[in-house]
Amino acid sequence: MKFGINLFPTVAPDEKSAATWYEEAIELAVLAEELGFAHVKTVEHYFFPWGGYSPDPVTLLAAIAGRTSRIRLVTGAVIPAFTHPVQLAGKLAMLDNISHGRLDAGFGRAFLPDEFEAFNVPIDSSRERFDQGVEAVRRLWSEEDVVVDTSLFQFGPVTLLPRPFQRPHPPILVAAARSPESCAAAGAAGYGLLLVPSVARRERVQEMLGGYRAARATAGFSSADEHVQMSFSVHLDDVDGERARDFGRADSANNTRKLADAVAAWGRTRSDQYPGYDSVVRQVASTTYEESLRANNVLAGTPDQVREQLETLRSWYGDVTVSLQINSGSTPIEESRRTLRLFAERLLTELSAPGSSTPGSTATEPSASASAEAADLERSAVGVES
Amino acid sequence: MKFGINLFPTVAPDEKSAATWYEEAIELAVLAEELGFAHVKTVEHYFFPWGGYSPDPVTLLAAIAGRTSRIRLVTGAVIPAFTHPVQLAGKLAMLDNISHGRLDAGFGRAFLPDEFEAFNVPIDSSRERFDQGVEAVRRLWSEEDVVVDTSLFQFGPVTLLPRPFQRPHPPILVAAARSPESCAAAGAAGYGLLLVPSVARRERVQEMLGGYRAARATAGFSSADEHVQMSFSVHLDDVDGERARDFGRADSANNTRKLADAVAAWGRTRSDQYPGYDSVVRQVASTTYEESLRANNVLAGTPDQVREQLETLRSWYGDVTVSLQINSGSTPIEESRRTLRLFAERLLTELSAPGSSTPGSTATEPSASASAEAADLERSAVGVES
Repeated sequence: MKFGINLFPTVAPDEKSAATWYEEAIELAVLAEELGFAHVKTVEHYFFPWGGYSPDPVTLLAAIAGRTSRIRLVTGAVIPAFTHPVQLAGKLAMLDNISHGRLDAGFGRAFLPDEFEAFNVPIDSSRERFDQGVEAVRRLWSEEDVVVDTSLFQFGPVTLLPRPFQRPHPPILVAAARSPESCAAAGAAGYGLLLVPSVARRERVQEMLGGYRAARATAGFSSADEHVQMSFSVHLDDVDGERARDFGRADSANNTRKLADAVAAWGRTRSDQYPGYDSVVRQVASTTYEESLRANNVLAGTPDQVREQLETLRSWYGDVTVSLQINSGSTPIEESRRTLRLFAERLLTELSAPGSSTPGSTATEPSASASAEAADLERSAVGVES
Repeated sequence: MKFGINLFPTVAPDEKSAATWYEEAIELAVLAEELGFAHVKTVEHYFFPWGGYSPDPVTLLAAIAGRTSRIRLVTGAVIPAFTHPVQLAGKLAMLDNISHGRLDAGFGRAFLPDEFEAFNVPIDSSRERFDQGVEAVRRLWSEEDVVVDTSLFQFGPVTLLPRPFQRPHPPILVAAARSPESCAAAGAAGYGLLLVPSVARRERVQEMLGGYRAARATAGFSSADEHVQMSFSVHLDDVDGERARDFGRADSANNTRKLADAVAAWGRTRSDQYPGYDSVVRQVASTTYEESLRANNVLAGTPDQVREQLETLRSWYGDVTVSLQINSGSTPIEESRRTLRLFAERLLTELSAPGSSTPGSTATEPSASASAEAADLERSAVGVES
């Protein structure tokens, strides 16, 4: 497995100023690089305390690029529906060059009705905008004299500047919430996947991954180059697992409360492009922290307890890349630092070994009870990404 | 006067890679802060080697923000015609917070037909887009529950996140090329000005400044808070003025050649919103470096020679902020470093003294010959900004 950090703000101005949140986020990214983590990721959201401190992930990642030299920079995700492909390709190519080729470009469809309304973009067109946007960006990166003539975009011939640092283009990752078809399409194209396991049952995530891997293999891509990222909140304490879970519980309650505000518009929005999203409000409120913990949708406890969770996740999903959400804004910064250091000290090297089988891994097959809990998780929408 | 640096790339991939240009730009920004310069500025342009390495000034300035702590960060300029106000306000507010309040937000209309074509934006609508875009950004920064309902933008009520660091909002500067009316409007609104003196006769620039200052005074703004930025390329040599002018001459020829490519579309574009721009191609080719030098549209020579130029500029325009273009990409980086250090050592402190009258300033009233040269400058479009 590989590990990085996910900087997803879930904080309002009256709780923590944006300047302080960025300062802490940049500090944690620098620390993550020092400690050997592989990536730092952030998100694009607007208006709501749930994600709203990061309307442009490229801006925060560029500041982090200025302070780091090795760690990969992941947009998780940028939204082609809201930004013209020429601008999206341009600023991402700038970030790729400024960081000397450290960009992993994740793209998402977006799913908050208020965001689509603000940009005057019909939410039902999001799939089309995503597909045409990603394809236009890919072509602007890898071709010259590009002519785009699709239903949404007409331009060219133009040659994008700057040319990206990574050739033919930075790795592309696609955020997928529940659709095995999207995952298969991403696999066939050779793209990576950004997943948020907490928004679907474990069996559904496995089905999505299976479809993705089969499509990659059919298209001739090596399994060694596979890039699947999954995000989990994490809280560690060296000896007192319950103390870590208390922070996790508070963080989860904060996240749930803020997500509920952000998705409230689904109570008055229907779209056949987003099956099930109109029940998200109800779902968000009805998952307990203990359920999420037992289903391994959040990680918390002592390093040994979290190791067991991660080994279970590996037995379910394989050697994926895990994105550790450690800076929502509700957890005190000293706790985030402690978690990051403890993770690096006690878990990072051991679990990073490719395909390693660690002591106790045979005991981590999902128990019947974990399965039953996981089956409930269609109800959990904590951390929905796209 | 105040001084900063202008990072305006005029370089193609086969001359210098984007990664190298950014590296040098960031290095010079860090050096400029160490040496006591007041600001670093960059631009938004697409596709052409003339500016095209900077399609998103916020991305480069964010990387610089991560490496600096005092110097002001100036967008010179972002283009509301190409970016939705919610995105523009959002990423600029991120930069303002990440830099702890160091943003000066310059906005421009844009003037390259190819850019408008790529974004499917009618060039004739640029004034309207500029006006509505800047006003929407200002309101998103300073108000909550904003409802915008104009001919181009309809959204809200929304409350922008993050709130900007500077309250009620970061200083706004308006790029103006030739229009005294635009300058008067900026003055009445309390905005600053970004000017490129080389695109108009000295008398026209003075008229623009006069209108700006009168409108500011009428609206009750103090002249002490005035913020007028002017950009000039600069090349210094400690003892050999001709050596500095040789670098300047090469830099100017490079700029002219690349600008000619970027504005070529004006040969087939007419817009009554851009009077005179259709003759820009011809104008660009017909100004010599010596003419520009005599008209003080470029700065080059020994520190004493450049001091005299700056004192002349002060006698013409008052205590403006000068943006020194030192990193076009054609001048070797060691020459840019040398110029910056020499400027800091020999000119910065002396000329930064507010309202200072320096020895020789009485001799710097424009001579008849300088006036005659300046009168030619309607022909020069080197460095057109908006």
